[in-house]
Amino acid sequence: MMNAGATPKTNHLLGLRETDVSRITDILDTAREMKNIINRDIKKLPTLRGRAIVTLFFEPSTRTRTSFELAGKYLGADVVNITAAASSVVKGESLRDTLLTVEAMGVDAIVMRHSAEGAAHFASQLVKPVIINAGDGAHEHPTQGLLDLFTIRERKQNLSGLKVAILGDILHSRVARSNIWGLQKFGAEVHVAGPTTLMPVDIEKMGVIVHHRVEDAITDADVINVLRIQKERQEKGLFPTAREYARIFGVNAKRLALAKPDAMIMHPGPMNRGLEISHDVAYSNQSSIQEQVQNGVAIRMATLFLTLTGGKTLETIN
Amino acid sequence: MMNAGATPKTNHLLGLRETDVSRITDILDTAREMKNIINRDIKKLPTLRGRAIVTLFFEPSTRTRTSFELAGKYLGADVVNITAAASSVVKGESLRDTLLTVEAMGVDAIVMRHSAEGAAHFASQLVKPVIINAGDGAHEHPTQGLLDLFTIRERKQNLSGLKVAILGDILHSRVARSNIWGLQKFGAEVHVAGPTTLMPVDIEKMGVIVHHRVEDAITDADVINVLRIQKERQEKGLFPTAREYARIFGVNAKRLALAKPDAMIMHPGPMNRGLEISHDVAYSNQSSIQEQVQNGVAIRMATLFLTLTGGKTLETIN
Amino acid sequence: MMNAGATPKTNHLLGLRETDVSRITDILDTAREMKNIINRDIKKLPTLRGRAIVTLFFEPSTRTRTSFELAGKYLGADVVNITAAASSVVKGESLRDTLLTVEAMGVDAIVMRHSAEGAAHFASQLVKPVIINAGDGAHEHPTQGLLDLFTIRERKQNLSGLKVAILGDILHSRVARSNIWGLQKFGAEVHVAGPTTLMPVDIEKMGVIVHHRVEDAITDADVINVLRIQKERQEKGLFPTAREYARIFGVNAKRLALAKPDAMIMHPGPMNRGLEISHDVAYSNQSSIQEQVQNGVAIRMATLFLTLTGGKTLETIN
Repeated sequence: MMNAGATPKTNHLLGLRETDVSRITDILDTAREMKNIINRDIKKLPTLRGRAIVTLFFEPSTRTRTSFELAGKYLGADVVNITAAASSVVKGESLRDTLLTVEAMGVDAIVMRHSAEGAAHFASQLVKPVIINAGDGAHEHPTQGLLDLFTIRERKQNLSGLKVAILGDILHSRVARSNIWGLQKFGAEVHVAGPTTLMPVDIEKMGVIVHHRVEDAITDADVINVLRIQKERQEKGLFPTAREYARIFGVNAKRLALAKPDAMIMHPGPMNRGLEISHDVAYSNQSSIQEQVQNGVAIRMATLFLTLTGGKTLETIN
Repeated sequence: MMNAGATPKTNHLLGLRETDVSRITDILDTAREMKNIINRDIKKLPTLRGRAIVTLFFEPSTRTRTSFELAGKYLGADVVNITAAASSVVKGESLRDTLLTVEAMGVDAIVMRHSAEGAAHFASQLVKPVIINAGDGAHEHPTQGLLDLFTIRERKQNLSGLKVAILGDILHSRVARSNIWGLQKFGAEVHVAGPTTLMPVDIEKMGVIVHHRVEDAITDADVINVLRIQKERQEKGLFPTAREYARIFGVNAKRLALAKPDAMIMHPGPMNRGLEISHDVAYSNQSSIQEQVQNGVAIRMATLFLTLTGGKTLETIN
Repeated sequence: MMNAGATPKTNHLLGLRETDVSRITDILDTAREMKNIINRDIKKLPTLRGRAIVTLFFEPSTRTRTSFELAGKYLGADVVNITAAASSVVKGESLRDTLLTVEAMGVDAIVMRHSAEGAAHFASQLVKPVIINAGDGAHEHPTQGLLDLFTIRERKQNLSGLKVAILGDILHSRVARSNIWGLQKFGAEVHVAGPTTLMPVDIEKMGVIVHHRVEDAITDADVINVLRIQKERQEKGLFPTAREYARIFGVNAKRLALAKPDAMIMHPGPMNRGLEISHDVAYSNQSSIQEQVQNGVAIRMATLFLTLTGGKTLETIN
């Protein structure tokens, strides 16, 4: 029928579970080059000039959308934002029609966030543009997982053998899932802790070590990744009051002291300071939270570059 | 006083009723060239580099706004989106001041949608930038009309002598009006059908053939253009329940069988599948719904190109 | 830690109170060059190519945001818009985290509007990108002040010795404050008038002449700057009904006749015509309201150019 968006794409990026180590390494290595570009005065590369990227967000997001938008623009692509009101996608059919419409407009990549698990997979089977999953329900958020891997690798050189503690609402967290799949591929040992009501019942099947007490997960950890608590969960009775949560599960200086002395603190943002993380920990030298943001742009530049150009070598981006 | 937006513009695009056949043909021919560009890997043309386009939407729209935004960016223009809350334009004066303000910012074209019939005409008399009507009340939506003409011409070669059935809410449809004016200029025979409550009382004056039964309009049709039913009309009692509407007026496989075997199905989107159009018809080989979307970008590229550059020849766009 | 946004910036633009005459003159002179560019067919300059500008608006604004967005794009910069819902910044900490996040994304300038006085100063001390204050509470709106100075200078050649009347809600007006500081630096005599409830108690300390009657402020004025009345003030009982306001304080032809014959009328927009300004005055030959809008883009181009490139000479922008 139609032949829009003829870019030769090697791959979508749907999730880290199905992405092999060599591809992840390729993205991480490319992101290192991209990070140099972000630090330049003149960031503009002509690499993706003439390519059109749509960010298609069915859930609100400022941080991830802005990160992708800047990444695309730094590489010279056109970026158009579409924010879909949740109301227009009550029916699954609407997602299908929206995707077909965006495809027909000739775009080369769709960066999409949707509340349904598997939405990005569905899109990748339906339409031709490159699909980048920017979060599908509680399933995966692969670029967040990649930027976390990148940030850890940058500080710790090697992922293998590290003890990584992921803390908080594991049940609803696509960040947790993408981190777990990614970290395990590189030989890290993943520990999780959080309220029982926010822990998946079959969490052990993911190959992680589950703790009831945050202290046990943190002890001797190299990396502490604190998840954002979504306050609407509390209204549903899934965890105690904010004050109780901070007291029992919050990461503060006292708990941080249990980890290795050079343990790094991560958080996907935005933080509820005073709830899941204390102010002093968030801004300590051990915190890599701002690095994560910068690395996020670099990872998204690398992802867009590699998925949209496929075979180009690294030299061409300098 | 001021001299902003000095682009030599030959024409606005306000409606198809007042646009002559040679100009429409020019846009359709240019759009064919533009469609080739959308299918390229590198879509970027420098043709409109340094031109500024504002999309000024007083009614919500994702599809049309995105289509124009991509069209402008594919041609190298700067595109800035302004979404005006309906509340700020209760008074006619506000529209005037908004237009004067946008003009003063030095923009070259304003793509505008407004709930009031004649809003684009008003703008074209008030300010100097090129005005592209992206929908004014129930009056006209000329680029939709043009993309429909383009899509029909692409499948049927010639518009003259075709039987075109337009079905649904004719009363409130700017898409219907732009289609009727455009099709008639090229010698097509336009039939309409829909609920009596949604049919303009003086519809015959437009030179169309009015049917009470959808079946009569469809029979032997070459083209079936199914309008979107806006569900808020139903709340006002302007048509029966959704179930009744689908049963009496919906286009399904059985009704489609009454048309010519190679009849094409059109819909301006977004579809209410199961209401005005059935799932199987929407995705059948006879459906040109996705082509319409792609052609919409090409038509908008052609429109922006021709209105903003005026005398340039087609060769210069390759 | 990180080194994003390495642009050598000479200055933020936080307010006119602290900006010296030579810097203001530099911006005004550069804006004159920029205004020529806006009037060109091809507005695009490569001057800020590869620079990233974020507009970060915690209060709604179409006019100022669009003006900055176009200014940045005319100069070739990438511009990304972030609109922060007021709800997410109830706590001061959120502003801090938002700013740190935007900084980490590698942007070169942040154009910010926030309801809190001092928000831009806070930002300038926290993060490395250039901070342009686009309004902080009732404190300052320096680019509005600059565009007003520019517009007056263009019509009157010289600011020194002019009688300028600023009318309306002085108490809540950042426009008034930026105008007062700016005008006084250039030797203008500033008169103010408005409802007592909307006049700061210590207004005399700003060195202005306070009148109770609008007529006294207007008499023999060279410039009349009419502030926008925010109707929500009325609900709080801070001024009489709209009808009473127009009668007692509104600028109409009769009151305008008290000013010098060539007095110019200004308004920061959007206007409530019939309330603080009558229709005939708003669109009279003495009105410079549309010039203000165009000059606003020129001022913002000049501000972005000078803050982001620092030492470049004017020749380079042609």
